[in-house]
Amino acid sequence: MSEFSYINFIRRSPVSNKATILGPGDDAGVVKISSGTYVLLAADTLVEGVHFYSDTPLDLVGRKALAVNLSDLAAMGGAENISALVCVSFPQNISGEGPDLLYQGLSDLARLFDVAIIGGDTTSGSQELVISVSVSGTIDPKYLVKRSGAQMGDHIWVTGYLGNSLASEKHLRFLPRLPEAAALTREFKLSAMIDISDGLLNDLQHILRESGGLSATLSREAIPLSPSMVSGDLEKSLEQACCDGEDFELLFTLSPSESARLEASSLAKNPQMPLTRIGEIHPGHSYEPRLCWLENAQVIKFENYGYEHRFGHQNANKSLKRT
Amino acid sequence: MSEFSYINFIRRSPVSNKATILGPGDDAGVVKISSGTYVLLAADTLVEGVHFYSDTPLDLVGRKALAVNLSDLAAMGGAENISALVCVSFPQNISGEGPDLLYQGLSDLARLFDVAIIGGDTTSGSQELVISVSVSGTIDPKYLVKRSGAQMGDHIWVTGYLGNSLASEKHLRFLPRLPEAAALTREFKLSAMIDISDGLLNDLQHILRESGGLSATLSREAIPLSPSMVSGDLEKSLEQACCDGEDFELLFTLSPSESARLEASSLAKNPQMPLTRIGEIHPGHSYEPRLCWLENAQVIKFENYGYEHRFGHQNANKSLKRT
Repeated sequence: MSEFSYINFIRRSPVSNKATILGPGDDAGVVKISSGTYVLLAADTLVEGVHFYSDTPLDLVGRKALAVNLSDLAAMGGAENISALVCVSFPQNISGEGPDLLYQGLSDLARLFDVAIIGGDTTSGSQELVISVSVSGTIDPKYLVKRSGAQMGDHIWVTGYLGNSLASEKHLRFLPRLPEAAALTREFKLSAMIDISDGLLNDLQHILRESGGLSATLSREAIPLSPSMVSGDLEKSLEQACCDGEDFELLFTLSPSESARLEASSLAKNPQMPLTRIGEIHPGHSYEPRLCWLENAQVIKFENYGYEHRFGHQNANKSLKRT
Repeated sequence: MSEFSYINFIRRSPVSNKATILGPGDDAGVVKISSGTYVLLAADTLVEGVHFYSDTPLDLVGRKALAVNLSDLAAMGGAENISALVCVSFPQNISGEGPDLLYQGLSDLARLFDVAIIGGDTTSGSQELVISVSVSGTIDPKYLVKRSGAQMGDHIWVTGYLGNSLASEKHLRFLPRLPEAAALTREFKLSAMIDISDGLLNDLQHILRESGGLSATLSREAIPLSPSMVSGDLEKSLEQACCDGEDFELLFTLSPSESARLEASSLAKNPQMPLTRIGEIHPGHSYEPRLCWLENAQVIKFENYGYEHRFGHQNANKSLKRT
């Protein structure tokens, strides 16, 4: 089961209906309600011992269970009128205040982002704590951004800082980039977007692959390294920024002219929320995207398949097992 | 945790937004998209060892995980443009074809009811199999039926047959009453509806309580006993029909004049899908509804709180533990 991918699993035998705009394979599914309104639907599960340690405070587990879903909505271009369903399986040995704590963390974040908690289901008696949150939200179709829209020549941008999310607990406390997604999609025409959960290189390759097999160059100097690690070894920091994952920042592409507009805008000049241009999309020959590293504007290395080849391991410092 | 009720848990600290029409506490949450369109949202989790045995065929587990959610949508008045998100945690020891089988059962039912499978999430490495399905569907507000609308004098009806669902495997193979709900709500003004998951008496009491503390009389002779058990002891069959649960039939109320229209309609004369009038709503004095049994039109017994008092046990023949 370790190689098991749900996406491939259900993509083999898709089931859609007349309302389906986008099925499995992006950060959220998309359903048409009317010509002016789509509904985004996303779900994520956190399993004790797989996605979080048994001693992780339950308010942070509840918070993260909602936050990862809001990050998925952000990656589609943002959403309004967001509602969440919360399904929890509690183990029998959970402490009395455990459920309260879990809900506290979840509902605090819900209030912060005006998300309604509209229902769900609770079970007791499972072996471990399992929490599945699903979210829905509306979006104007003109703001919808898929993974698959990147074009040759597009510039690659990222929000915030990358790397060290697991060690610094950012993965438990991050703020989903919903306002940033809304501001970006309302002012600029983005061609593709994804949230960084599997790591910059991995998630960039999702865009390259879904966009028909493109390549990309990334500038080593441009990668925005998390301040929590910049005092360390630069090479190691870069590796972490590219591969750690769970940054939950937005990675997006846009045309050179839109990129220039963004660069000149006030959005790109907010010190609280850096927006950084880190690379460029190039033609690809195959379904396997190539990544090219630039240093002082010179190509220093070509590689296929990103970090597995570059760093020779997969998310070694990403805690716990994860599909 | 055995007394733990999620609904009470999240009702203590509700979180809603301007789009929320109905939060936790009914069969589905309701979100306003426009004055002419609401979206229904429901989710249910099945946990191995809690809701199904480890040797239950996985196609039936997948099927049921979707079916219980479609039954929830039916209980709100039915839905269109239904989409499902599927979150599964597989244990590491699952057989190679297990995931395929699970998805086969789920997707076969999805096709039968024109439900799109639009996304989800898969994890491997959990201790037990946990599957959470969430569904969304649109409904015209004029067809929406809540639990809370029952009125004094309303008649109580039920679809299909009751009892023996667990022993006969109906609980794994039932057809969600979506077409029946659509036909009923389009032709008649229902005042309240719920699907029978916890047992006729228990679910009727949900209606009575949510409708402000009403009472009800039920006619012993009218309860439609499942053909799979009518050859047995009548008293035991009646107990099963009232308490087994997991029938996933619709229990609904409507005014005497609407009830008379239904009785005279072709809908009530379909031998494939019996619709049976089983009782009547009465005023209540408190938040604790009273149930009154009728035999030959004579009151034979009053009781509070349904089956627990009547039968002295709670779902004794309902397999496994369940919240």
